[in-house]
Amino acid sequence: MTPRPPIILAGIPASPGFAVGPLHRLEATEANYAAKGSPATEIEALTEAIAAASAAVADLIERSSGDTADILEFQLAMLADDTLAEPARAAIGQGADAASAWARALNAEIEGYEAAEDDYFRARSADMKDIRDRVLQALAGAEGAAAPLGAILAGDDIPPTRFLETDWSHGGGIALSAGSSASHVAMLARARGLPMVVGLGDALSALSGEALLDAKAGTLTAFASVAEIDRHRTAAAAFDAARSSAAAYLSTPAATADGTRILTYVNIADPSDVEAIDIATCDGVGLMRTEFLFSHGLPDEDTQYRAYARVLEWAAGKPVTIRTVDAGGDKPVPGFTVQEGNPFLGLRGIRLSLSRPEIFRAQIRALLRAAVHGTLKVMFPMIAVPAEYAKAKAMFAEEALALSARGTVHRMPPLGIMVEVPSVAIAPEAFADVAFFSIGSNDLTQYVMAAARDNAAVANLNDTAHPAVLRLIREVADFGAARGIPVSLCGDAGGDPPLIPHLLRAGLRELSAVPAQLAAAKAAIAEVTL
Amino acid sequence: MTPRPPIILAGIPASPGFAVGPLHRLEATEANYAAKGSPATEIEALTEAIAAASAAVADLIERSSGDTADILEFQLAMLADDTLAEPARAAIGQGADAASAWARALNAEIEGYEAAEDDYFRARSADMKDIRDRVLQALAGAEGAAAPLGAILAGDDIPPTRFLETDWSHGGGIALSAGSSASHVAMLARARGLPMVVGLGDALSALSGEALLDAKAGTLTAFASVAEIDRHRTAAAAFDAARSSAAAYLSTPAATADGTRILTYVNIADPSDVEAIDIATCDGVGLMRTEFLFSHGLPDEDTQYRAYARVLEWAAGKPVTIRTVDAGGDKPVPGFTVQEGNPFLGLRGIRLSLSRPEIFRAQIRALLRAAVHGTLKVMFPMIAVPAEYAKAKAMFAEEALALSARGTVHRMPPLGIMVEVPSVAIAPEAFADVAFFSIGSNDLTQYVMAAARDNAAVANLNDTAHPAVLRLIREVADFGAARGIPVSLCGDAGGDPPLIPHLLRAGLRELSAVPAQLAAAKAAIAEVTL
Repeated sequence: MTPRPPIILAGIPASPGFAVGPLHRLEATEANYAAKGSPATEIEALTEAIAAASAAVADLIERSSGDTADILEFQLAMLADDTLAEPARAAIGQGADAASAWARALNAEIEGYEAAEDDYFRARSADMKDIRDRVLQALAGAEGAAAPLGAILAGDDIPPTRFLETDWSHGGGIALSAGSSASHVAMLARARGLPMVVGLGDALSALSGEALLDAKAGTLTAFASVAEIDRHRTAAAAFDAARSSAAAYLSTPAATADGTRILTYVNIADPSDVEAIDIATCDGVGLMRTEFLFSHGLPDEDTQYRAYARVLEWAAGKPVTIRTVDAGGDKPVPGFTVQEGNPFLGLRGIRLSLSRPEIFRAQIRALLRAAVHGTLKVMFPMIAVPAEYAKAKAMFAEEALALSARGTVHRMPPLGIMVEVPSVAIAPEAFADVAFFSIGSNDLTQYVMAAARDNAAVANLNDTAHPAVLRLIREVADFGAARGIPVSLCGDAGGDPPLIPHLLRAGLRELSAVPAQLAAAKAAIAEVTL
Repeated sequence: MTPRPPIILAGIPASPGFAVGPLHRLEATEANYAAKGSPATEIEALTEAIAAASAAVADLIERSSGDTADILEFQLAMLADDTLAEPARAAIGQGADAASAWARALNAEIEGYEAAEDDYFRARSADMKDIRDRVLQALAGAEGAAAPLGAILAGDDIPPTRFLETDWSHGGGIALSAGSSASHVAMLARARGLPMVVGLGDALSALSGEALLDAKAGTLTAFASVAEIDRHRTAAAAFDAARSSAAAYLSTPAATADGTRILTYVNIADPSDVEAIDIATCDGVGLMRTEFLFSHGLPDEDTQYRAYARVLEWAAGKPVTIRTVDAGGDKPVPGFTVQEGNPFLGLRGIRLSLSRPEIFRAQIRALLRAAVHGTLKVMFPMIAVPAEYAKAKAMFAEEALALSARGTVHRMPPLGIMVEVPSVAIAPEAFADVAFFSIGSNDLTQYVMAAARDNAAVANLNDTAHPAVLRLIREVADFGAARGIPVSLCGDAGGDPPLIPHLLRAGLRELSAVPAQLAAAKAAIAEVTL
């Protein structure tokens, strides 16, 4: 028998690493279900499956916190709502089996959510799909659902709950035909060090059996030859060795091979992230996102104040740079963001905050009050023209005055800007009065290359190492050095070892990375000679 | 009685000019219809209204050509299809009146079109709305539909057919709450010199009565004071005077006040555009778009060849720069473009052509064959990296070889690139081997400012006069001058008098504008001292 030629699919790395294992399809379809018989037994099967799904979600809630727990609470509430199963029970009464009746009923719901005008309802369609598949899995029984330990989960996309309930203790990985490296699951995978590749294309659905996942290069190989398996093993071993040796760098301050000290910060997306970080391993927080506060509508001032104060207290005097809310783009917020044809080029970041001053002022007051708890710095996302910075700064001054008048304790933090709109990097002289610059390399790259960072079809163009991107980074670094304005970088590039030499040679001396990449970033810095 | 304070709405100018007149709502709603009585009379009223709408469309077809005629043919075919009215007749049978039955039936159709996966069907939803409103107008009778002569048509958006059937002989204008300055109607308005403002916001729907439309500043004023009416009249007179005096410049070659010759080209979107242009008034075609060929699916090689040859023959030896198809972005093509979350940052222009080589090669062969009919230059849209140019150039060489082998007459044109992705303007040295650069200021601006050009919410940021955009234009002009590579500009800025001094001072000596703006561009050039 001639061996089948290998198939290599190319996608986008979403979380680095290597895996070898059987491909396991993520989709649970009604086809896996063996009908029991009479309408009465089918309805009973459906009721039991819903109960089993509810129990599984409740169990997950026990082991979750923050955002994730909230998403699961929503799902549990939906499962408990008897009206959701009503159309399915009616269909069973007319002869349908439990699985197809449930799938059809939920698909109708999902369509309704997806067609909704409102961002909030559209975003909920992912949860409804999760609920649909969870009950279908329960109906199909263990044989239809459980992935073998160490499997590579393959499908169009993966719901966060599926990620959370999977046992990753024996390795494994995730391979998606669509998906995004900016998704919630991609963040979870990076935080956990689990390999994940997205954008592998429709051909993925035709593959099965053992496969090699190279989430450094972004490939999935099926029907691998012995030589390919060997190459994969060598690359994986090198990756593991680099990861372990990098860990040794975590406890010491970062410096290049020739002794230049590089300030290394962490990016955090939720106050609870700090629980897993030893403040001694970093120079502070280079980017604290505040979108988490807006994940269930608009937060009040006190909720925000407590979240900011908690991180400032934890940082024990080291600087914490909080970014005002960067909603819009790929981060819709119900009741706040608007639907647009090109959201990355739309009303997002500071543009949106300035257009909704009542929401922005609440965040400003919370920041002013929290500032007394540590070394706070505040920066504005998506600044394109000086007038935006001037307006935001004036609003800080006004709110500080108002707090003074009320006798409320507060402090004015240094105010800086993100450098992610090319106009700022090309003509930085208009921003000589900002306290600091923080380069957002992800957005800067997608605008300079005109290639969306969540679009697999143009992923080859979305390259932070492109000379044009690096030239702008150098120009901002030079401008900052000449005017005494600190310049840092807080995009994904800051934690990406191959990019770090480029960034340091472009003149940067401050990098911020997600906690999971801090050690690798420090190790990469130690190898650079300037 | 105290006079009501004036209301001034700010939007985006889509076609310059001034108008004073009564606001006339564009939406024809079923509310305008007075029900006739029995189901039989309602069905008769509907049948008559459909017949009247069909007659009106047929009449418009007589007076149209090209794309417009094709759109209308589609509408006529839909109106003739009896199944379209079937649900409406059923609803009338159950007691509904003709207008609400028709509106509901068509809205259901439109929803279906809008939810379609396929770009082609989604694009057809605008036509279905047009059909819906056309029949509703016929039902409502003349009193509900006809706009008074000289009126300012106001609404969310305006269908092209409505524009075409309106009698503009007594002036008037268009004021839209949404809309886009890049729409088909905006192009029609500019070609005709009719004032149009888009993006005026929802407040527009609350206005009525006499209004002032200032489509130079982009404002609509209701309840104007006497002083405001005076100011408006003065500005309008100045605009008209400038337009007439500009016309005098049309017949002579463009030059600055101090005698520097500026090459001025025209942009054309359809071969039939040349019928209205005297080739003696311009130095050739700076941009011939080829998207029109793809408006009904994928064109064959011979259709393309004939369209290119026609324009080259007309140009009588003057250069004609044809751009390979720039589909995607805001220009979907059924069976070719894909649906994306951020189409402006997606698979468009050369990216799409390279991903569909069989389609691209047909265009390349048509261009190579047409080149013998005049002075052809070819350019590629959306180039971001040198590899794209190298690939496209290699395909030209391959197809030329194949044509030679078959003994087909052809010629290799100079191959240049659009400069619209910032990476090219920031690091032009990677493109030292191109035959020419043509700056696409519209796209370049939207990427540099990260502000979509069709989004009213960020229109204030979408500014070609921003120092960062002008700096990039200057760098490309300098690079071209140093290397002997011609640099022109073919975005809207090339025909925008206030921008022209900036462009010339940035070093440009070749501009291309739409025919309707050529005279004003030449007049503006004549006022510049370098």
